[in-house]
Amino acid sequence: MKSVIDAGLVQDQNAKLDANLQADYDALGGVLSRRGVDIDKLTALAQTFAVAVPSWGAGTGGTRFARFPGRGEPRNVFEKMEDCAVINQLTRATPAVSLHFPWDKPSDVQELRGSAEELGLGFDAVNSNTFQDQVGQEHTYKYGSLTSMNAAARAQAVAHNIECIELGQALGSKALTVWVGDGANFPGQSNLRGALERYLDSMRSIYAALPDDWNIFIEHKLFEPAFYATTIADWGTSFACATTLGPKAKCLVDLGHHAPNTNIEMIVARLAQFGKLGGFHFNDSKYGDDDLDSGSINPFQLFLVFNELADAALREGAAFKPAYMLDQSHNVTDPIESLMSSAVEVQRAFVQSALVDRAELASLQEQNDVLQAAQCLKRAFRTDVGPILAMARVRSGGAADPVAAYRASGYRDRVASVRPAKAGASSSGIV
Amino acid sequence: MKSVIDAGLVQDQNAKLDANLQADYDALGGVLSRRGVDIDKLTALAQTFAVAVPSWGAGTGGTRFARFPGRGEPRNVFEKMEDCAVINQLTRATPAVSLHFPWDKPSDVQELRGSAEELGLGFDAVNSNTFQDQVGQEHTYKYGSLTSMNAAARAQAVAHNIECIELGQALGSKALTVWVGDGANFPGQSNLRGALERYLDSMRSIYAALPDDWNIFIEHKLFEPAFYATTIADWGTSFACATTLGPKAKCLVDLGHHAPNTNIEMIVARLAQFGKLGGFHFNDSKYGDDDLDSGSINPFQLFLVFNELADAALREGAAFKPAYMLDQSHNVTDPIESLMSSAVEVQRAFVQSALVDRAELASLQEQNDVLQAAQCLKRAFRTDVGPILAMARVRSGGAADPVAAYRASGYRDRVASVRPAKAGASSSGIV
Amino acid sequence: MKSVIDAGLVQDQNAKLDANLQADYDALGGVLSRRGVDIDKLTALAQTFAVAVPSWGAGTGGTRFARFPGRGEPRNVFEKMEDCAVINQLTRATPAVSLHFPWDKPSDVQELRGSAEELGLGFDAVNSNTFQDQVGQEHTYKYGSLTSMNAAARAQAVAHNIECIELGQALGSKALTVWVGDGANFPGQSNLRGALERYLDSMRSIYAALPDDWNIFIEHKLFEPAFYATTIADWGTSFACATTLGPKAKCLVDLGHHAPNTNIEMIVARLAQFGKLGGFHFNDSKYGDDDLDSGSINPFQLFLVFNELADAALREGAAFKPAYMLDQSHNVTDPIESLMSSAVEVQRAFVQSALVDRAELASLQEQNDVLQAAQCLKRAFRTDVGPILAMARVRSGGAADPVAAYRASGYRDRVASVRPAKAGASSSGIV
Amino acid sequence: MKSVIDAGLVQDQNAKLDANLQADYDALGGVLSRRGVDIDKLTALAQTFAVAVPSWGAGTGGTRFARFPGRGEPRNVFEKMEDCAVINQLTRATPAVSLHFPWDKPSDVQELRGSAEELGLGFDAVNSNTFQDQVGQEHTYKYGSLTSMNAAARAQAVAHNIECIELGQALGSKALTVWVGDGANFPGQSNLRGALERYLDSMRSIYAALPDDWNIFIEHKLFEPAFYATTIADWGTSFACATTLGPKAKCLVDLGHHAPNTNIEMIVARLAQFGKLGGFHFNDSKYGDDDLDSGSINPFQLFLVFNELADAALREGAAFKPAYMLDQSHNVTDPIESLMSSAVEVQRAFVQSALVDRAELASLQEQNDVLQAAQCLKRAFRTDVGPILAMARVRSGGAADPVAAYRASGYRDRVASVRPAKAGASSSGIV
Repeated sequence: MKSVIDAGLVQDQNAKLDANLQADYDALGGVLSRRGVDIDKLTALAQTFAVAVPSWGAGTGGTRFARFPGRGEPRNVFEKMEDCAVINQLTRATPAVSLHFPWDKPSDVQELRGSAEELGLGFDAVNSNTFQDQVGQEHTYKYGSLTSMNAAARAQAVAHNIECIELGQALGSKALTVWVGDGANFPGQSNLRGALERYLDSMRSIYAALPDDWNIFIEHKLFEPAFYATTIADWGTSFACATTLGPKAKCLVDLGHHAPNTNIEMIVARLAQFGKLGGFHFNDSKYGDDDLDSGSINPFQLFLVFNELADAALREGAAFKPAYMLDQSHNVTDPIESLMSSAVEVQRAFVQSALVDRAELASLQEQNDVLQAAQCLKRAFRTDVGPILAMARVRSGGAADPVAAYRASGYRDRVASVRPAKAGASSSGIV
Repeated sequence: MKSVIDAGLVQDQNAKLDANLQADYDALGGVLSRRGVDIDKLTALAQTFAVAVPSWGAGTGGTRFARFPGRGEPRNVFEKMEDCAVINQLTRATPAVSLHFPWDKPSDVQELRGSAEELGLGFDAVNSNTFQDQVGQEHTYKYGSLTSMNAAARAQAVAHNIECIELGQALGSKALTVWVGDGANFPGQSNLRGALERYLDSMRSIYAALPDDWNIFIEHKLFEPAFYATTIADWGTSFACATTLGPKAKCLVDLGHHAPNTNIEMIVARLAQFGKLGGFHFNDSKYGDDDLDSGSINPFQLFLVFNELADAALREGAAFKPAYMLDQSHNVTDPIESLMSSAVEVQRAFVQSALVDRAELASLQEQNDVLQAAQCLKRAFRTDVGPILAMARVRSGGAADPVAAYRASGYRDRVASVRPAKAGASSSGIV
Repeated sequence: MKSVIDAGLVQDQNAKLDANLQADYDALGGVLSRRGVDIDKLTALAQTFAVAVPSWGAGTGGTRFARFPGRGEPRNVFEKMEDCAVINQLTRATPAVSLHFPWDKPSDVQELRGSAEELGLGFDAVNSNTFQDQVGQEHTYKYGSLTSMNAAARAQAVAHNIECIELGQALGSKALTVWVGDGANFPGQSNLRGALERYLDSMRSIYAALPDDWNIFIEHKLFEPAFYATTIADWGTSFACATTLGPKAKCLVDLGHHAPNTNIEMIVARLAQFGKLGGFHFNDSKYGDDDLDSGSINPFQLFLVFNELADAALREGAAFKPAYMLDQSHNVTDPIESLMSSAVEVQRAFVQSALVDRAELASLQEQNDVLQAAQCLKRAFRTDVGPILAMARVRSGGAADPVAAYRASGYRDRVASVRPAKAGASSSGIV
Repeated sequence: MKSVIDAGLVQDQNAKLDANLQADYDALGGVLSRRGVDIDKLTALAQTFAVAVPSWGAGTGGTRFARFPGRGEPRNVFEKMEDCAVINQLTRATPAVSLHFPWDKPSDVQELRGSAEELGLGFDAVNSNTFQDQVGQEHTYKYGSLTSMNAAARAQAVAHNIECIELGQALGSKALTVWVGDGANFPGQSNLRGALERYLDSMRSIYAALPDDWNIFIEHKLFEPAFYATTIADWGTSFACATTLGPKAKCLVDLGHHAPNTNIEMIVARLAQFGKLGGFHFNDSKYGDDDLDSGSINPFQLFLVFNELADAALREGAAFKPAYMLDQSHNVTDPIESLMSSAVEVQRAFVQSALVDRAELASLQEQNDVLQAAQCLKRAFRTDVGPILAMARVRSGGAADPVAAYRASGYRDRVASVRPAKAGASSSGIV
């Protein structure tokens, strides 16, 4: 595996932190051993954690008002892969990349696959894009894609999804994530039921093209870009569609795609119970689909999601393997730094959830000892597992402090010098 | 049919309004005929409309902070029926009553049925109550009813629901509505998945006791009384449970039981599409389960719900018969006045939705003429169908102006003189 | 005044509708006269109504995911003015345009003013733009404009606002609207208090540059583009700042800039009471700052806002003159059609609010006759004042049916042939 | 100071935990010292923390649906004080009690004061109650209290508030908290502006009765019990009123009284900046005014609130002293346990906020190093300061583990044997 960041630099950085890390690790080890927990088992568990990164997350994001470009943004899928390799080299938690077509469509698929292998990267779920019109596209998606009233536009969208599956197969992916922005901005714009019928019809054609060992993930979202009624707006619709389509169809939960006040961890529990939890798009949000860094706004919620995942894993055993992916928009941070930090935040919640004493919790629940049951979760959440995460990285060959190592490496300066700046604010005056 | 309000008084009241009503009706008739619509057909349609009233709505409601009693509140189910008879006599739109057990459990069921028949009233869905502990109850529901960790409490709750079915059968009901407040106030308090498993288990026992021609309605609610996680919190869970239980199980939509910003009419469309729309609890709300008078806060939303119902009726034909019921809490109005006005508001939305030119709408949608499609709905909504509703009442023997007739009748004074005031604010200091 | 649409065509269109309009008008006149209301007075009142249109609204809007261009979009401020002239010619309700700088900055201000005068248009509040970086701009606003930690960026933003005032003066405007997207995406990103201190500091400099007869409007918004903390996030902050700055500073209410469930009409009442209601950006929304057509989602709310304005006008007299402006994003409709329809919707709410019998309402409130007080408002809202609005347009020289006349005119085809299509979807892959 | 719980038992309990606590404390001390922080200074700081407990919180709460009584609930203010003494004895963080009148009105004020002194307790802000009608009350508050259309009801409410001040003076309180439920359930029910004018009028009379060294705290709340428009609904209204009334009037922030998605810590920053932050009602919530235990749902938000308080304290110095009080409803837990745990949670956030390196944070903000600024806060939040809190309690004479000590004491059994059970579910059928 090729190191994008100089391996010696990472070692030097780690060496500087080694004494303190070991001391912190030992201190935490003592605390945990007094609670009957073996820190090294947790560290080993942390080393098994993986979350995919989105290729598009390597660029700077924006809003409809403006995009403020960052330095050295990747110009193509190969440069995106290079950035993703940095993230995985330093965190050792992101061995796979999720691609988005046609944005990431390579002229030579095998070249891309080979380049990824060199970088030690694999490919997670591939994503189709029928929420934009591409240059030269025959039929517009302005009024819908998989749900369009125009049969030719629907067929075009179906064909694109099937092409995504083919590209994914060539790359070694095992799943297609379908998110469509289809919906209506006004009451009356579309027949709500008719739109879902057309969606199911289109999805049946895509489903039919899935290889045997593939899944198709249905991603719901409450609103935006549609502002009155989104065809796949909630987990209920996603679940009903996945059930209608068949066993390969599952539901994908993006943490920012729900109505205000929604209890997301309960949706996770429901989908797991009914066998339809496909995977996640991790991020955080305060208002809508804010796509902020995972765990930055409500870290306890992220922990509670993983608490449900731990419960489901206990019940379902090895068969329970939802896909984990980050999906964030980095508007004011270096995308590489945000993705590294976010991968660590998700891993943190994973390790904290492993600290929950599930037998004790079940017993407290059995007794309706509500206060202590709540405290049982809180105790796990409050544990600062930072030293475990750092030690897991070091033991796996990564950086004790990924952001510090990244900054020390000068990677951003280096790529900025070869990747020209991308355009920023549109002058179109959309507000 | 016995008239609780003097029939002559109603006639006199109508006579006073007759000339103006006829003139307004004719004016509207002209407007509609210029749009190709026959007003008398609409009036005849309006006369077919019916929505059930909740027995408990006849008393003054309250909040956890206080209840400010009204005058002449009904003390028992017979007095509630009398109040409901007034509502139906004057509106001719509420021929059935929905009872709540054990609150409304009569010592003699046949006496109640006979009394209802005399008043011209029937019985809609019956409701069970396992969200409170009744005096002398063996097992508490403090920590859940159908989902309780305590098998005996679950069995008690199941038995109560089966008793409700038996009472309902004796009264001529055809459905049981099950709403449970079960849930958790804290993360960790209960195993989210375990709770739903126990719920399904309990519901299977109740379902098994349903007569062949009965339905069971599952009513979901986002929160309150549980404030962290409610077992049946959303339509997705309700739908998954109804699907699991079988064809007699359907979903009930209460307009106030959703997360902020939820598109409720789309949930209606989804449930209709997947064959699980059982019925409605109509009311209105701005914040949570506010239980305000139907149409008082967002009348356009109520119209859009009926627009979906009209679409479904067109698709499904006579088989499509969701149950309509009011479910409101009248804290600052005379409950009889609020229930009359609210029945009329729901009827208004029903009639307005019949004004939508569905062929034109479909054609505009086909052409993606978004603006005119939106206007097509708006035109129906904007039509002031008040004269149609008044004429429908008069033609069916009701009051042109139900609230005015009710006030003129002195009914509230009369019952206040024989029904002593009920206690108001608790002194317990719950805030 | 130059007619962009052939005046004869409008007359012909009106002539075709004349008989029906007169009949509908007479029918409504009868209904109103039975309620003691003179329809012609209402029509005259409707003729006085005016709402400004936003120059940027003439182009097709979009979301961060995509923009699907429309045909014949205006390429510069002169073409925008031409489109706005169409809107005013047909609706006679939009005599002023609100410009946005630097988007609309003309090379020759007097030429623009002259062109506007020819078209019969004036200029409403001007808008500054410090939420985007413009090509060649010295200091970035990526981390804030009026609140930036960088004093030079703040100075640049202040200077831009002062330039806007100067441009506005030359054009005959009387107000500057300041909306900044400044804020933070993460807890810790900025010192919340420090940011507001810098904002006030910057605003003081702008305030100092205001001519004597100008106002400055502070526009708040809950979120987007900032997703954790927006510096001017709510009316409380806006009010505190306007109070701090002085009498020329007032608050602007955009209907889509509030937290879910917010009672917007109460904010209107509060600002009116405390003397700080500057004006409005009208639009409608279901989720966030959706910028949908006014009255398309919750028409009753729009009516309730105007009900407060009517109350305030009664109390304050002629001095009460908040600025009315549309601010919408037209993603799936012809912007001209949406702006015409929306102006009419706002006018509709204005006329309906004039139908409220304020003496009766006050009396019902005095008696705590809650139900009838609510009905008193509803009665006004339910009145289909469409014929009044149409007659007002005709009497003022506009079109009985503006959208129909516009379509008949072939204006869009005409401008599409001379204005080349603008670019649509970005290929940057921001999601 | 009288020990309600046997002091020896507490010592014994502490002794059992001593070795582990010391080890955990030393481990944390090491971690902190490697970050340049002296643990003992933090422990000393933790010992200075105090938050008042609400007398009404000692009883079991409920919802409008039901109240499920607990064992041994206090029957009067003396028993409430005894329970509060337990809380303070074990946590050493709750030396004052907030009373609610007339619930807590003693027949002999001096007896109450003496009893409190014996228990080592003082009195925090007193609370008035005009949201309920009391038995024998002359004028109802059904349609409002301080805002009632009925001048006599307003005068009665004013007089009650003045009586609260007098009682508070006799007890040694220094502030009156005014929360009114006044508002409307329907558009039209009340004139929104008129209601606030009457409110200000009434408040001026109460303000005039304030002793020189007193404050009056205005508590806003979005909704409930009013469901359409609450007179004091948001911080903007609270702030405008406090400004109007004068320097003794300040705003009180209850964490559960805001619209969904509101950034509460920013409201704290704003009120501090404009000199109007009076104090807090701490609790937690997911949906509305859920009144859950502090920190149980979103502990990071609680931390961010204290982060703003730390910033304000740094700016304002010793003059900055907002009042801290818990305000929770304990429906499914032992109220004493919940209040102890909650006091500790608030204290935890206080200590964590002291761990923020404010100079480093300011420097990162200055550089727009967004990622590291966010991490700077997170690092403080993630620190498990549990050993500091436990050691602070032990050093102050409290319990290392308050809940365990409380359970070991058998206090609940003891009081249950002398305090008869209170009634639970109402049979009135309010839903």
